Amino acid sequence: MTHDTAQSTKPRVVLLGLGAMGTALARTWLAAGYPVTVWNRTAAKAEPLRGLGADVAVTAAEAVAAGRLVVTCLFDDASLEEALDGADLHGRDLVDLTTGTPGQADTRAVWAEKRGARFLSGGMMAIPPMIGVPDAGGYVFYSGPREVFDQHASTLAAPLGVRFAGTRPGAAALYDIALLSAMHGMLAGITHAFALVRGEEMPTKEFAGLLTSWLTAMASATDLMAEQIDSGDYSRGVVSNLAMQVAGNRALAVTAEEQGVDFRLLAPYSELLEERLAQGFAEEDGTGALELLVKGS
Amino acid sequence: MTHDTAQSTKPRVVLLGLGAMGTALARTWLAAGYPVTVWNRTAAKAEPLRGLGADVAVTAAEAVAAGRLVVTCLFDDASLEEALDGADLHGRDLVDLTTGTPGQADTRAVWAEKRGARFLSGGMMAIPPMIGVPDAGGYVFYSGPREVFDQHASTLAAPLGVRFAGTRPGAAALYDIALLSAMHGMLAGITHAFALVRGEEMPTKEFAGLLTSWLTAMASATDLMAEQIDSGDYSRGVVSNLAMQVAGNRALAVTAEEQGVDFRLLAPYSELLEERLAQGFAEEDGTGALELLVKGS
Repeated sequence: MTHDTAQSTKPRVVLLGLGAMGTALARTWLAAGYPVTVWNRTAAKAEPLRGLGADVAVTAAEAVAAGRLVVTCLFDDASLEEALDGADLHGRDLVDLTTGTPGQADTRAVWAEKRGARFLSGGMMAIPPMIGVPDAGGYVFYSGPREVFDQHASTLAAPLGVRFAGTRPGAAALYDIALLSAMHGMLAGITHAFALVRGEEMPTKEFAGLLTSWLTAMASATDLMAEQIDSGDYSRGVVSNLAMQVAGNRALAVTAEEQGVDFRLLAPYSELLEERLAQGFAEEDGTGALELLVKGS
Repeated sequence: MTHDTAQSTKPRVVLLGLGAMGTALARTWLAAGYPVTVWNRTAAKAEPLRGLGADVAVTAAEAVAAGRLVVTCLFDDASLEEALDGADLHGRDLVDLTTGTPGQADTRAVWAEKRGARFLSGGMMAIPPMIGVPDAGGYVFYSGPREVFDQHASTLAAPLGVRFAGTRPGAAALYDIALLSAMHGMLAGITHAFALVRGEEMPTKEFAGLLTSWLTAMASATDLMAEQIDSGDYSRGVVSNLAMQVAGNRALAVTAEEQGVDFRLLAPYSELLEERLAQGFAEEDGTGALELLVKGS
């Protein structure tokens, strides 16, 4: 009885796309007592969910007809257009978790609105094992009309934390990709570091622990960088100024050469700081170099 | 009385070089009750320390004559050679905290041994405000003969944590620079990320907090990477394989283009992963790309 009552007060979730991510989402909504309608291009993937109480639609259009909140978790933006080709989106709230670029989300929002739907774009900062595990720290950025986000926030929060990224449809994808970009840089640095010490005495595992501690301690530098960016004063709170940083970076290049490691992953940032120094910003922090990355600024 | 007794049981520290780092070290040793002899090329910098109980030597040679443990914290490796030109190093334990490359430390060790000294090289993972503040997490890598490290470890641990990096003289500088290199990559990624979101709706400070949390969570990837490197099995424990990573990286480049941000800082790592993929390692993790960085392997 309790279960039925709970179901009746929770809105139906229509979920299109049952890859690893979509399947994990469906399971969590079902476990939390939400009525769920699923559809997947390869129908066999839906069967295990039917056993857990999901309604399985034969076509995407049939699924979309089953409820107002339509969550898509497909291969890419083109798959979304293909899947929804024959569906009637009028009165629907389309929440797209398909991975794409900010520009794709901006365009998709216009497309959805033309078809009578309200559109939220999502950017997932999680991998499937984090879904439904609140302590795992996974969350999803959402962007689009604030009122659509507010209306569905509690439903969307069942599988993963939610965070509003902005009203621009592309904001969720943008912040998602900005975090991934920062990680990309970190992984480049870590890969270079492991290459430098390969074959040395310290056990690799021990060095890995030192790397994690060091990067964790240094990651909090983002706070000061944000202050510098917001104020436009890149010399604010500087500990090691650009002249010192550039001098220190030479040791990184020389050490790579000594150890027989290609410096290609780190060279562009060293060069960017040197360019900024050559422009006369010796007393600034390295943060100011971002001015050189932004085209036309 | 207690203070005098403590002093008499603690070995004298001779410290050459009173920049921000050397001065902070001298203050901590004095505060901990060590007898300290200091020297600096510009003598005026020694005066405040005299007031705190330090003995001030007029020449580096005179300082070196005052005690067995000689700690150098100079501008660069050339300054060290210049400062110690006329000093008698026989029977001395030279602990060099001057920033340099692993190769410089290896060469300096031979030089010191020829002059009758035992040589430890240090690599400082700290900035001056961390000195004497155990909770700040700063430490120093030391490398060289293990027995020399063991003999002086408790003295060296007074201002900052100590960590033995290996018997190769250059190991301390190498691990220091390896950690700085990883940070260099992370800062490149962070700079790119801030450039991407400049002018968007979310407050910069809020994004900074998300960056720190995300990078902190992802920094623990080093553990799995170490296992992959040690085993030579780069497909061990893979979550997102190289084929998926390379596909995902395209979104990073496209987004940078959309946002008008130069992709130069991140391009080389993307290209390295693509090269590795082209070699047929689609099922591996990205870690295997380090094989392409190590020359002649």
